[in-house]
Amino acid sequence: MVVLLVNGKFCKDPTLATAEDFYFTVLNQRKETNNPFGFNVTFGNVDNVPGLNTLGLSFARADVGVNGQVPPHYHPRASEILGVSEGTLLAGFVSDQRLFTKTLNVGDVFVFPQGVIHFVVNIGEVPAVAFASLNSQNPGTIFIADTVFGSNPSINPKFLAKAFQLDSTIIMKPRTIFV
Amino acid sequence: MVVLLVNGKFCKDPTLATAEDFYFTVLNQRKETNNPFGFNVTFGNVDNVPGLNTLGLSFARADVGVNGQVPPHYHPRASEILGVSEGTLLAGFVSDQRLFTKTLNVGDVFVFPQGVIHFVVNIGEVPAVAFASLNSQNPGTIFIADTVFGSNPSINPKFLAKAFQLDSTIIMKPRTIFV
Amino acid sequence: MVVLLVNGKFCKDPTLATAEDFYFTVLNQRKETNNPFGFNVTFGNVDNVPGLNTLGLSFARADVGVNGQVPPHYHPRASEILGVSEGTLLAGFVSDQRLFTKTLNVGDVFVFPQGVIHFVVNIGEVPAVAFASLNSQNPGTIFIADTVFGSNPSINPKFLAKAFQLDSTIIMKPRTIFV
Amino acid sequence: MVVLLVNGKFCKDPTLATAEDFYFTVLNQRKETNNPFGFNVTFGNVDNVPGLNTLGLSFARADVGVNGQVPPHYHPRASEILGVSEGTLLAGFVSDQRLFTKTLNVGDVFVFPQGVIHFVVNIGEVPAVAFASLNSQNPGTIFIADTVFGSNPSINPKFLAKAFQLDSTIIMKPRTIFV
Amino acid sequence: MVVLLVNGKFCKDPTLATAEDFYFTVLNQRKETNNPFGFNVTFGNVDNVPGLNTLGLSFARADVGVNGQVPPHYHPRASEILGVSEGTLLAGFVSDQRLFTKTLNVGDVFVFPQGVIHFVVNIGEVPAVAFASLNSQNPGTIFIADTVFGSNPSINPKFLAKAFQLDSTIIMKPRTIFV
Amino acid sequence: MVVLLVNGKFCKDPTLATAEDFYFTVLNQRKETNNPFGFNVTFGNVDNVPGLNTLGLSFARADVGVNGQVPPHYHPRASEILGVSEGTLLAGFVSDQRLFTKTLNVGDVFVFPQGVIHFVVNIGEVPAVAFASLNSQNPGTIFIADTVFGSNPSINPKFLAKAFQLDSTIIMKPRTIFV
Repeated sequence: MVVLLVNGKFCKDPTLATAEDFYFTVLNQRKETNNPFGFNVTFGNVDNVPGLNTLGLSFARADVGVNGQVPPHYHPRASEILGVSEGTLLAGFVSDQRLFTKTLNVGDVFVFPQGVIHFVVNIGEVPAVAFASLNSQNPGTIFIADTVFGSNPSINPKFLAKAFQLDSTIIMKPRTIFV
Repeated sequence: MVVLLVNGKFCKDPTLATAEDFYFTVLNQRKETNNPFGFNVTFGNVDNVPGLNTLGLSFARADVGVNGQVPPHYHPRASEILGVSEGTLLAGFVSDQRLFTKTLNVGDVFVFPQGVIHFVVNIGEVPAVAFASLNSQNPGTIFIADTVFGSNPSINPKFLAKAFQLDSTIIMKPRTIFV
Repeated sequence: MVVLLVNGKFCKDPTLATAEDFYFTVLNQRKETNNPFGFNVTFGNVDNVPGLNTLGLSFARADVGVNGQVPPHYHPRASEILGVSEGTLLAGFVSDQRLFTKTLNVGDVFVFPQGVIHFVVNIGEVPAVAFASLNSQNPGTIFIADTVFGSNPSINPKFLAKAFQLDSTIIMKPRTIFV
Repeated sequence: MVVLLVNGKFCKDPTLATAEDFYFTVLNQRKETNNPFGFNVTFGNVDNVPGLNTLGLSFARADVGVNGQVPPHYHPRASEILGVSEGTLLAGFVSDQRLFTKTLNVGDVFVFPQGVIHFVVNIGEVPAVAFASLNSQNPGTIFIADTVFGSNPSINPKFLAKAFQLDSTIIMKPRTIFV
Repeated sequence: MVVLLVNGKFCKDPTLATAEDFYFTVLNQRKETNNPFGFNVTFGNVDNVPGLNTLGLSFARADVGVNGQVPPHYHPRASEILGVSEGTLLAGFVSDQRLFTKTLNVGDVFVFPQGVIHFVVNIGEVPAVAFASLNSQNPGTIFIADTVFGSNPSINPKFLAKAFQLDSTIIMKPRTIFV
Repeated sequence: MVVLLVNGKFCKDPTLATAEDFYFTVLNQRKETNNPFGFNVTFGNVDNVPGLNTLGLSFARADVGVNGQVPPHYHPRASEILGVSEGTLLAGFVSDQRLFTKTLNVGDVFVFPQGVIHFVVNIGEVPAVAFASLNSQNPGTIFIADTVFGSNPSINPKFLAKAFQLDSTIIMKPRTIFV
């Protein structure tokens, strides 16, 4: 069987749409952050909020444990607004090799321009929670380490060694974590 | 003097940009809702967050007092995601004359498609707070009553009387509140 | 049966397209305006002119009887050019609560920016006819009174009473006309 | 002096905008068609209707004398809707080398997709008038004969002779009319 | 059977995509230019490189024989970058009836803005080869002579005679070459 | 002095434009690749080809020495077509953690979708040359290692150590090469 897809999602018959299609309710639930990076992201997008189809928006809740981080990543198709609702986060992004960082407390908001590599780190004493909105139905999220060091199959370690100017045995050691 | 404007905002010299340009900090402050409608909206956009320029995003905090409402309005250039952080709100919008409503508690999210008339009403016992993200740098906010009944100069009351099928003296009575 | 729709319309096989698909012929026919508002609009869009699919244009003829009006409405996805071919119309729109109006005679043209609330009123002695072009295949037309006071189900009259600062019994009286 | 231009037009200070900026009044005036092709086009765009700036629309009136034509041309940045208000026009366009034509009487409408070569010919007994709307602020109008045979400097006649498979002396004869 | 098409191409199931879908290998093969114009174009687009779907790019190789030309044409939906890899080409386009031309040797690059009529002529002693990239998945290519003089059915020769100010018998003589 | 910039580039007065503005001639010159990565890229964009302004295209020549590579990077605002004119390159990109690679010989073409991390490595015996076209006037080029490990100021090594699961002293050793 050949599967053919259209660009974008099919729409529900609008006469059958209900308010539930525009509604999402789990963002007040704390998530486990028990992993090597110490974070957990819950997405709200057209897959669980059908009414978002064609609207050009999606959102997320990020739980970041103490000392945890959402590691460096970028969204190829969206800018992001991040607001902190619990704890203290250090937010950072790099543009033209300049690093921009800011400590965010509850009620603070930070903006990540489309396509820049960014990260947030919990620099406080308690678990932190942030909410993000992205201006795309399908923003994409590309984590740097997973993509470069954890691809399937692996990028030739010799190539990566030159690219990152590190020994190839060193560079591939943590690979199992990223795959 | 003739003032000429470009479509959009000028950009700061990027070599002078700092993390402050991407940061906003007043969203954790409660606002007065002591007005006939019982609400107060604080906007974050390119005017107070210069880094938002060209990013296609803006955001807002809405305080809604007990029995208050953000009255019927629409954004001609943006869809909106609304999340509740305090209290209980009834959110509603009308599409093709069908009314979609949903009760939102803390952690609940609702979506308003671009251009639809929508409103939120505090149906709880305590002041409510919601945060909204909009996918435009300049979404526009058009309040129905202010625009139709409070324009300057007024739309001819005789015209409005026929449009709304109400007596023209009745329709113009609350005008002073909307102007 | 579940109906799934793609965003937009399917296209006819282009090898089967004919000149008829790009043609529309009923715009020279006068329409009845015997209703509470005194107008009648005939649309030309992809539903009756298949060749308009994907072109980003649609059009309309408006008949406006003596003392009639096309009541306040907006198009969330299109700007509009309106030209008068018979009679005299007063055209108006509100932007930032400022009212812009102009008397239009035969041959005069007026422009309504995307998303603004606008209306036209026959202020002459004879039936008026106007032609409009809109820069969207699917501009949407949202009549204010029908949407706010005639939705199904109704918006809670208590909420509307506060929003419009009118008594809730008064505001719901003409509802049957808008539903 | 070096002239630098921004892409697009400057905007008037919106607080100084008036209804006149959205208004155009000369479309009811007959124009001379006393030229080799027998037509005359009056444009309404941001140059004479400042309110059209950024709206994505422009319009035109075409007078076409008996036996006259608006010769083959295309708009690189707009689709077009054409409606006939006087006389009888034959409208045609070519897509994938297929010719689509239709006779248009008063009240008839025809659509020209973006970028296709099209033309209208007065095939009636009286002068014809048509109105066109285009979905671009700056649609561009490229007349084939003027562009190919009337450029300054001329395209090398030897190149044109091969391109059109005609003798180069023949092909350059009418050049003075197109320059 | 009625064929219905979506705007754009269906997508392959992404889990089945392979590197072959992003690869094209025939651009190093010389093509015959034995035709009245002396050129041959090989296109690379979504039809033979499925991975191009939705990317907004396509490309082409042009072989142009001695004295040959790619005759005047335009792309309604793309700008073009042309680079020469063999021989010497004269590239030209017309904008606002001004002719811009440039002699291109190996390694030279020239740009054709979206929608302008352009051409290249081999003005060297050897066959020439050029590579072009266009910023649309479906740029369209409209050859002027084929479209205006070779359509099916033909545009009325009397109309063309007036449009090009040539005798109608002369203008239709080479028609068989363009059909 | 405060520098204010418009989004995009100013346009030259079009009446002063010449064919030179659409022309670029240095792409046939071999470039040095004597650096730790073994590559050199020459860009053609609006800065050296003013006619590209607003056209949505730019291009580049890449010289890649023996054993050299264009290290992992992405373009946030453009897809890319790459064609090989000398030597043998291995091209690769990662999408959804899947690695797609292809060996490219002279005349072969490969496509990199917008926003994906990609690289090319010279796997042949001689220096390689490739030409690339990108569908943006300002595609952006973000090299992963330079951005993550060479930013100014540095991202906290402790954060990077956790993100890449490597020792922080190891990870910062090659920093001087990336800054």
